[in-house]
Amino acid sequence: FIESVCMKTLNIAITGFGNVGQHIARLLWQRQAAYRERYGTEVRLVGVCRSRSGLRCAQGLDAGDVLDTEFDPDLSGEAFLQGLQADVLIEAGPSDFATGGMGLVYMRHALHAGMHVIAVSKGALALHGQELLQTAKTHGVQVWVSGATAAALPTVDFVQRQLAGCEVLAIEGIFTGTANFILNQMMHEGMGFDAALRQAQEAGIAEADSRFDTEGWDTAAKITIIANSLFGTALNVNHLPRQGITNLQAADMATWQAQGLMPRLIGYVRCEQGQVKAGVEVRALDPQDVFYHVQGKNKAMRVTAEMGELCVQGGASSPQATAAAALKDLENLLKTW
Amino acid sequence: FIESVCMKTLNIAITGFGNVGQHIARLLWQRQAAYRERYGTEVRLVGVCRSRSGLRCAQGLDAGDVLDTEFDPDLSGEAFLQGLQADVLIEAGPSDFATGGMGLVYMRHALHAGMHVIAVSKGALALHGQELLQTAKTHGVQVWVSGATAAALPTVDFVQRQLAGCEVLAIEGIFTGTANFILNQMMHEGMGFDAALRQAQEAGIAEADSRFDTEGWDTAAKITIIANSLFGTALNVNHLPRQGITNLQAADMATWQAQGLMPRLIGYVRCEQGQVKAGVEVRALDPQDVFYHVQGKNKAMRVTAEMGELCVQGGASSPQATAAAALKDLENLLKTW
Repeated sequence: FIESVCMKTLNIAITGFGNVGQHIARLLWQRQAAYRERYGTEVRLVGVCRSRSGLRCAQGLDAGDVLDTEFDPDLSGEAFLQGLQADVLIEAGPSDFATGGMGLVYMRHALHAGMHVIAVSKGALALHGQELLQTAKTHGVQVWVSGATAAALPTVDFVQRQLAGCEVLAIEGIFTGTANFILNQMMHEGMGFDAALRQAQEAGIAEADSRFDTEGWDTAAKITIIANSLFGTALNVNHLPRQGITNLQAADMATWQAQGLMPRLIGYVRCEQGQVKAGVEVRALDPQDVFYHVQGKNKAMRVTAEMGELCVQGGASSPQATAAAALKDLENLLKTW
Repeated sequence: FIESVCMKTLNIAITGFGNVGQHIARLLWQRQAAYRERYGTEVRLVGVCRSRSGLRCAQGLDAGDVLDTEFDPDLSGEAFLQGLQADVLIEAGPSDFATGGMGLVYMRHALHAGMHVIAVSKGALALHGQELLQTAKTHGVQVWVSGATAAALPTVDFVQRQLAGCEVLAIEGIFTGTANFILNQMMHEGMGFDAALRQAQEAGIAEADSRFDTEGWDTAAKITIIANSLFGTALNVNHLPRQGITNLQAADMATWQAQGLMPRLIGYVRCEQGQVKAGVEVRALDPQDVFYHVQGKNKAMRVTAEMGELCVQGGASSPQATAAAALKDLENLLKTW
C-alpha cells in the first residue's frame, strides 16, 4: 500500500511501430516489474503510432491491447500528438535524410512539449541536430541517441560518462556493421565488392538496397549526431566529406593484403586548432591499429582524450540490440527520474 | 549575484595524499571553474591528510595552502575525521590487503556519516566490499570505484551505464597493465620472466617490488571489487583462485608462439547456474580473441550480456590517469548533485 502511494509514473509514447518499435514495446513490458522495483517508477506505454494509424490509452497499453486492438486509422501524425500526455517519446520510425520526415515532426513536438526524446531514427538529428538539441536545452529535457548512433555499441553516452570531465580531442570509429562485414569478406575471400555484397545479402546482413550503408551515409549520419552531441557543432549529414566502399575492387584488396593492411570505413570527428572536422573515409590500417581486428559485422569506436585513448568494440546490429540500446537510455533516464 | 545565490556547494576530503592524491587535488583545482559553470556547484577541498599529518579548512584549501602550509602533525586518522564536514571522501591511500588499513577506517567513517566515497585504494573494498556497499546503501550514499578498478579503463560504471537494464553473464579482462607488458615483452623478445621483469622495471613500468602485479593480486583485487559491485557477491580477495605469471618460462612462450597463441593474465567473474565464480588465471588465446591484441601495458575488459558482447580497451596506467578516473566519478556524481 505504501509502495503504491510512493510510486512515480513515467509515461512513454513510441512513434514508429515497425520491427524495432515493437521490440522496444515488448522489452519494456518485460521490464516493467524491474522498473518498479529498482526505481519505484511505474513505466507505462500510453501510445504507439505507425505512419497511418495509432493507439492511445492514458492508463497504459499492454501487450494484449497492442496485439488485439485494431489501430485507429485517424491516430497518426499531428492527430496522435494532439493532447498526448507523455514524459518520454521514443522515435523509432524510418530515417528520412531528405527532410527529416515525420521523425522530425514528432521530435520537435515532443521537445517543445517538455518531453524527453529517445531517438532511434537518425534523419531528424542528422539534418537538424543543433536545433533539436537547443530546443531540448531550452525546455530542460534531454535527447538520448544511443539507438541512433550505433545502437549496441555505446558512443555518445560512453564519452559523456566514461570520460566525464576529460577534454576529447578526436573520435573515430567503424560505425556501420554491414560495411565492415563486406570489407572483411573481400579481404578474407579475395572477392570484389559486388560478390561480397551479394554474400552479405544472402546471409541477411545487408538490405536489398544497401547503398545507404555502403556509400557511407549511415556512418556519416552517426558521426554527425555524435559530433553535434559532443562537440556542439551544427553539422548536417549532407555536407560531410564522405567516401563509400562501392568502388573497391579485388585488386585494391590484393595490394593492401600484400602490404599487411586492412581497409576500414571510418567515421571521424576531431578538433584541429579550434576547428571541428568530421567526415567518412576508407583507411588502410596496419595490425597495430585496433580497428584492424574488428571482425564480422562488429563495430568499434576509439576516443582520444587528454588522458589517453579508449576503445570500445562489439555491438553487432539486430532489432533486439537496437531496442535494448533505446531502453538503456530509458534506464539511465530513470536513474534520475 | 543571482548565480552566487543559486550556487550549491560540495565539500571534498582526500585521505592519502601521496602522488595520486596530489594529482587529484591539482586536477580538482583546475576544474573548479568548470564545475561552477557546468553544474552550478562550488567544489571545495576542505581537508587532506597523510599517514601522520593533515590540513583542514572549512572554507576550502587552495594550492597555495597545501603547498605552503605546514601540515598539522595531529591531524590524521581519527583526529582528521573528528568533526570533518564533507560530502565526498576520496580515499587515495595505500592499499592494505592484510587488514584494509586506514583506508577501511576512513571509508567506514565516511559512509556512516553520510558521505559519498570515491575509492582509489583497493584494500578495504577487496576485503570488506559487501559490508561497505551495504553501509552505503543504508545511508543513502554511493561508493564509486573507478580509481580502484583499473582507473582509466572503465569497468563498473561502464557496465552499470552502457549495459543498463541488460543481464550481465560474464566479465573478463586484462586488468593489470604491468603484467600485460611483461607478457608482451616475453612473447615478442623471447625472454624469460625475470629478464622481461627487469626490462619493465628499468623502463619504470614495474615497481621494485612487483609481486603484487605479477602474482595476480592486483587483478584479483580488481575483479573482487567488480564482482561485489555488479553481482552483489561478498567475495574476499584472499579466497579467490589465483594464478600469476612469475613461473612462466621462455619455453612456455615458444610453445604458445608455435601454436599461434598469446598468454594473457585474465581476471574473470561469471554466473554459472545461479552461482557466481570469480578468479585469476593465465589463458593462452588465439588471434580471434580481442585480448590477443592488447598491446604494451594496456588493459581491456569484455562484458558478455544477453544482448551480446562489448569490449573496452585502453587505459594505460599513470598517476594522472588514476586521478582523472577518480574525478570522472566525481563529475558523474555532480550531474545529479
